[in-house]
Amino acid sequence: MKTYQNPPKNKWDELLKRPSFSVGELRDQVQVILTEIRIDGIDAIRKYTEKFDGVFIENLTVTAEEISEASGLVDNALKDAITIAAANVRKFHESQIPVSKRIETTSGVTCWQKAVAIDKVGLYIPGGSAPLFSTVLMLAIPAVIAGCKEIVLCTPPGKDGKINPAILFAAQLVGVSKIYKLGGIQAIGAMAYGVDCVPKVYKIFGPGNQYVMAAKQLVSISDVAIDMPAGPSEVAIMADTTANPAFIAADLLSQAEHGPDSQVVLVTNDASLIEKVVQELAAQLTELPRKAIAEKALANSQAIVLENVAEMIELINGYAPEHLIVAMGNYTEVAEKITNAGSVFLGNYTPESAGDYASGTNHTLPTNGWARSFSGVNIDSFMKKITFQEITPEGILNLGPTIETMAAAELLDAHKNAVTLRLKELKK
Amino acid sequence: MKTYQNPPKNKWDELLKRPSFSVGELRDQVQVILTEIRIDGIDAIRKYTEKFDGVFIENLTVTAEEISEASGLVDNALKDAITIAAANVRKFHESQIPVSKRIETTSGVTCWQKAVAIDKVGLYIPGGSAPLFSTVLMLAIPAVIAGCKEIVLCTPPGKDGKINPAILFAAQLVGVSKIYKLGGIQAIGAMAYGVDCVPKVYKIFGPGNQYVMAAKQLVSISDVAIDMPAGPSEVAIMADTTANPAFIAADLLSQAEHGPDSQVVLVTNDASLIEKVVQELAAQLTELPRKAIAEKALANSQAIVLENVAEMIELINGYAPEHLIVAMGNYTEVAEKITNAGSVFLGNYTPESAGDYASGTNHTLPTNGWARSFSGVNIDSFMKKITFQEITPEGILNLGPTIETMAAAELLDAHKNAVTLRLKELKK
Repeated sequence: MKTYQNPPKNKWDELLKRPSFSVGELRDQVQVILTEIRIDGIDAIRKYTEKFDGVFIENLTVTAEEISEASGLVDNALKDAITIAAANVRKFHESQIPVSKRIETTSGVTCWQKAVAIDKVGLYIPGGSAPLFSTVLMLAIPAVIAGCKEIVLCTPPGKDGKINPAILFAAQLVGVSKIYKLGGIQAIGAMAYGVDCVPKVYKIFGPGNQYVMAAKQLVSISDVAIDMPAGPSEVAIMADTTANPAFIAADLLSQAEHGPDSQVVLVTNDASLIEKVVQELAAQLTELPRKAIAEKALANSQAIVLENVAEMIELINGYAPEHLIVAMGNYTEVAEKITNAGSVFLGNYTPESAGDYASGTNHTLPTNGWARSFSGVNIDSFMKKITFQEITPEGILNLGPTIETMAAAELLDAHKNAVTLRLKELKK
Repeated sequence: MKTYQNPPKNKWDELLKRPSFSVGELRDQVQVILTEIRIDGIDAIRKYTEKFDGVFIENLTVTAEEISEASGLVDNALKDAITIAAANVRKFHESQIPVSKRIETTSGVTCWQKAVAIDKVGLYIPGGSAPLFSTVLMLAIPAVIAGCKEIVLCTPPGKDGKINPAILFAAQLVGVSKIYKLGGIQAIGAMAYGVDCVPKVYKIFGPGNQYVMAAKQLVSISDVAIDMPAGPSEVAIMADTTANPAFIAADLLSQAEHGPDSQVVLVTNDASLIEKVVQELAAQLTELPRKAIAEKALANSQAIVLENVAEMIELINGYAPEHLIVAMGNYTEVAEKITNAGSVFLGNYTPESAGDYASGTNHTLPTNGWARSFSGVNIDSFMKKITFQEITPEGILNLGPTIETMAAAELLDAHKNAVTLRLKELKK
C-alpha cells in the first residue's frame, strides 16, 4: 500500500483518482456485434457464442430437466447456505416496498404515486473463474418481490455447454425459470432486441466484463434501461484505534482478490495502525489462492493518515466508495455523516463479505464514484412510479384559474383552453 | 387524425410506432463542442453562446440585483399563480420522502436503507418560444425538499443578455440562487465538467432540444448522471360514451401545440365519439395561435376504435404513453390496470394541463416508451439510497458459516477468511 501522512486537502482528489475506466475504445467493436445480433438474430448469437465461449449452442434455453438435475449436483451445505442467504435478502428487500399516499393538494385535487413493477427484466450473471450464484439472489429476489412478470436470466455456458449447477439451483430457488445459455455481448443484445426464444426486456441488470459493460451502455442509448454504470469494485475502510488490524487486512484482501483493478483505500487517524495492517496483509496473502491478483490490486492501493474524524468523513464523502467499512468506536455517529457510499458496514464484526453474500443487503452497487448519484440495486430498481390525479368539478373550479394564468404566460393557449372549456361547462 | 376500426392486435405496434427519435447523427457534432468546453472552458462557453444565442456574455452569473428586479417585472396574477402551483408541487413531493426501516434479517444482523440527497444537481430550463417557469418549479422544488446542497440552474439568455423574469421569479421563490445565463450544449457541458463559476454537478435534469438531449446523453456516459432519456411529448386518451368530445379535443390540442413531432393518440370503444372529436378539433383549431404546429402533430395522430375496455388497456400498456387521460365512467377500475404510463389523469375534469402546471404532480415524465422502465421526476430522482448494516458478535456467529460456505463455493477465499478470522477471535 502507498502510505500518505496528512496529505493537504487540495491533493485528496489526485491521491484518490481512480484509474481511468473507459469502455470507449471497445465501443465500436461491440457495436458491430450488437448490430449483427439485431439483424441476423440467432445465427449471430450462435456464431459469437462459439467464438467467445468456445461452444456451439443449438438450444439456448436451459430445460426444466437441466434445472431439476442441478439441485442434485449442489452439495447440501451450499444449498442450505444459499437458502439462508435468500431468506435474508428477501426479508430486507420486502421491507423496501414503497407505500402509496393520496394527497389532496387543493380541495378537490387528489394526487398519488403508485409503484408498479417493470413488466420484463433481464438479469445477466457473468461466467468466468467463479460461478456467481450470489448475484442470482441479489438480482432475482427483488425482481420477484417487485412483481416483474417476465424475469429472464442469461449466463454463459461452459465449454461443455452447461451452466454451473449452483447458478441453476439459486435461480429455481428464487423463482426464475427462463434461463438462457448466453454470455457477454450476445446476452445483452438478445435481451435488448429480443432474439429467438429470448424475449426483449425493458431493463437489464447485472455485472460483467468490459465487453458486457460497453454493450449495456450502447443498448441503453435507445433500446432498454440498465441498472447503473459500471467500474471496478472498491472498498474504503475508516479505522481508528479500536479497529482490529487482522480484520482490516482481511477486508482489504477480500476486495483486492476481485481483480488487479480493484480499488482499496484505508483511512485512519491512528498512524500506528497502518504498519500493523501491512504486516497482517503480508501474513494473510501467503495463504490466498488468488494471491497474485490481490497483490496487484494492493500495489495501487492507498493508506491515508488524517488528523481527525471530520477530515476522514470529508475525504470519504468526496471519494464516494462502493463499499465502506467503518471500524471505529463511534461508528454510529460517523455513519450519520456519510453522504456518498454504496453500502456501509459498521463495526468490527461487520465484514463486507456479509453484504456480498448473506446479510440481506444488495451487493450490486455503484462503483467509480457513481455512489454520488446512484443507489445500489434495490426494490425501486425493478419498479417505476406512476403518478395519478383525480380532479373533481370543485377541484377544477378551485385550481383552474391558476392553470389558465400560467399556461397563458407560457404562450400555450391550448393548455389554457383545456381548462377554460371545463370551467365554462361547469358555470353553465 | 388517422382512424382505425378494430385493428388486429398484431398490427398495434406498427400503428403506434413513434417516429424514430435518434440523436445519433448529432452526436459527433455535439461531442466536438463538449470537448472544446472541457478543454477551453469559459472561452468555449462564451464563443458558443455568442454563436447559438446571439449574445456575448461576460458574466454568466445572474446577479442578486437581476433576481430581485425580476419580481417587479412579473405581474401579480402570474406571481400568485406560480405561488399556488409551487405550494401544490411542494405538498405532493414532500409526501414522497422515503422512510427508513431497520430490519433484523438474522438475530444480530441489522440492515437499513437511508435516502440521502444528491449533493450537487444541475437544472436545465430551455429558452426558446416560451419561458418555461413551470419547469423551474418541477425540478427545483423536489431538489430543495430532498436537501440537495448545491442546486445550479442554467437557462439561455435572450439576445438582450437577460433571462425571462418569470423564470427568475420562480427560481427565487423556491430557493434557487445559483442561476447562470447558459443554454444548450454550453449549459450541459458547464454543469458536467465544471467551468468558470459554474460548479460540476453529479446529476443533470431537464428538457431541451435535440442538441441538449444529445449532450446529456454524451456526458452521462462517464461524467454525470441524468434524469432520463428524452423524446417528443405525448398524450394518449382512453374514452368511452361518458367522455366529453370538446374536452377531449382540447386535451389533444394541448399536446399537439407542443411541437409538430408531438404524439397524440385517442383510443375508444365508442366509434361515434371520433367524429364528434374531429369536429371539435376543427372548431377549436381555428382560434389557436399555435394552429400550424398543432395541425402538423394532428396529421400524424391516431384515433383507434377497439371492441372493449380490456383491449384498450392492453393497447395502452403496450404503448406506454407519457401522459394518459382516462375519460371513462369506470376510470378508477381502469386506472388499477394501467401498468405503463408516466402520469395518469382520471375523469372528465382532470385535464393534462393541471399536471403540467399546478396540481402538484411532476411534469418531467418519460416519453418515447420509456415509461415501461422509468418513473417521472420525483423525490427519488434527487436522492440515492445508501444501505447500512451492523452485525454484532452474536450476529456474525449466526451468519458467519453461511457466508463462509458461499464464499468458498465462489472461489473467493479472502471473502471467506474475513469471516473466519472474526469467528476465531470470538471463539478464543
